[in-house]
Amino acid sequence: MSDWFRNGVAANTVSIDDRAFQYGDGLFETIAIRGGQPRLWRYHVDRLARGCERLGLVLPDSEVLRDQLDAAVQHSSENTAHCTAKLILSSGVSERGYSRKIPSDVVTFIAVFGAKTIAPARYRDGVDTIVCDTRLALFSVTAGCKTLDRLEQVLARSEFASKTAFEGFTLDADDRLICGTMSNVFIVANGFVITPSLERCGVEGVMRRHVIDVLSRNGIDVEVRDVGEAELFGCDEVFLTNSQFGVLPVRRCGEKIWRRHAVTRDVMEKLAANNVPECAT
Amino acid sequence: MSDWFRNGVAANTVSIDDRAFQYGDGLFETIAIRGGQPRLWRYHVDRLARGCERLGLVLPDSEVLRDQLDAAVQHSSENTAHCTAKLILSSGVSERGYSRKIPSDVVTFIAVFGAKTIAPARYRDGVDTIVCDTRLALFSVTAGCKTLDRLEQVLARSEFASKTAFEGFTLDADDRLICGTMSNVFIVANGFVITPSLERCGVEGVMRRHVIDVLSRNGIDVEVRDVGEAELFGCDEVFLTNSQFGVLPVRRCGEKIWRRHAVTRDVMEKLAANNVPECAT
Repeated sequence: MSDWFRNGVAANTVSIDDRAFQYGDGLFETIAIRGGQPRLWRYHVDRLARGCERLGLVLPDSEVLRDQLDAAVQHSSENTAHCTAKLILSSGVSERGYSRKIPSDVVTFIAVFGAKTIAPARYRDGVDTIVCDTRLALFSVTAGCKTLDRLEQVLARSEFASKTAFEGFTLDADDRLICGTMSNVFIVANGFVITPSLERCGVEGVMRRHVIDVLSRNGIDVEVRDVGEAELFGCDEVFLTNSQFGVLPVRRCGEKIWRRHAVTRDVMEKLAANNVPECAT
Repeated sequence: MSDWFRNGVAANTVSIDDRAFQYGDGLFETIAIRGGQPRLWRYHVDRLARGCERLGLVLPDSEVLRDQLDAAVQHSSENTAHCTAKLILSSGVSERGYSRKIPSDVVTFIAVFGAKTIAPARYRDGVDTIVCDTRLALFSVTAGCKTLDRLEQVLARSEFASKTAFEGFTLDADDRLICGTMSNVFIVANGFVITPSLERCGVEGVMRRHVIDVLSRNGIDVEVRDVGEAELFGCDEVFLTNSQFGVLPVRRCGEKIWRRHAVTRDVMEKLAANNVPECAT
């Protein structure tokens, strides 16, 4: 299926005793490679550092990680001007049972994939979404982290595998809006830009952080707070962020249609000028 | 480390693209092999069936699973009079991304391990426990199921890796008692036998179910309901259940010591007469 490197050495299999396989004991990053370079690399490393802290893992030296990533990209047969790298940190093989040393050394797995193509019309007109039935559990000890325990996203994403929706929103068990299955979400209401708090669950995306930082540098403070389902359907604009596609307007969620994307368009222009040219429309 | 079988064929590695490795997308069972036979096999199959229903997986024919298990046991160099089998159902390799077909066919992995030895003194005098700091998230969509997303248990168990405690209790985010990291818990209060509800989180152990069923056949109804942390420390007796060790009294939790285990002893005698001879003391 793909060409993986394990601690820098080509390897397409992993020990069945690896704790990532047995317990989901690890972290991952999905990194946009643009012009042969990893985009938002520092944010990816920051998120890995926070995840390693939470999981009791030793973050490898970021220069070693970067060297392994660069080698995987150079080795790849993909178009490295525009592709996707996946980096997995596993806690590796240990004695059987849940227990392990804290902190544990990790094993690094890296592979490069072709980027999924997003049609220009999606950037221009927006994408269709649904609200997933799958609810995210509250007060997860790994809230915000991109761990290998992703069953909630698997179940939520698989709900619309056969439908035309581009993305599904996941609410938490108290019906607050949290994320998309593979993206973060921002809403615009009364001129304010708001994104859900990820204190209880959800994944803090690197593009979410980039949007918050770029807007901040432009004098726009994004509100990070709880957002109820009703607020989603009552708001003026909605957009998605993701490391690969950048920013996409949301055109529809179920029966609700948003026809104007003026603030979203402004955000996209600012992103296009800040290392995310896909957003130029 | 161990001899695994993949769909009945010897294999100690798995594709890095396997969804169990990438997303924790699967289920597992840890089965006590006693006299060459799997104990509580029907309960294990029942739990797998509930897990498959929840995760959108196709449960393999239980006779095929049993044949694969028996073959792994026969092939094993362990003492098959008393050992442990681990059975993993993974959703296998699919296209990259969270989405998969619902229901998905599974890949079966089985290995046999030596059983951990429990000293007779632990059955007689009880075991020492702690309350873990790690809290379980509330309203998990996979509550009760034994999925491969086990980071909460990894973190809770690793808290006391270097301590003398035998087990750690995990509370949920609202400080209700739920489980041990690798066991279920029962308390005895005013003559009643009580075990925490697992509606919001936790794993429904097969030995927990066996205890409930054996007591029911003896005219004792176990109460399944919420149990607060204060109720744990105020109760008369505490015991643990697990597919491998059966039933163990709890002697201590932190500073609290329980010296009498009269009801627990009665439960252990009933279990010893019902397929769990380890409990005879």
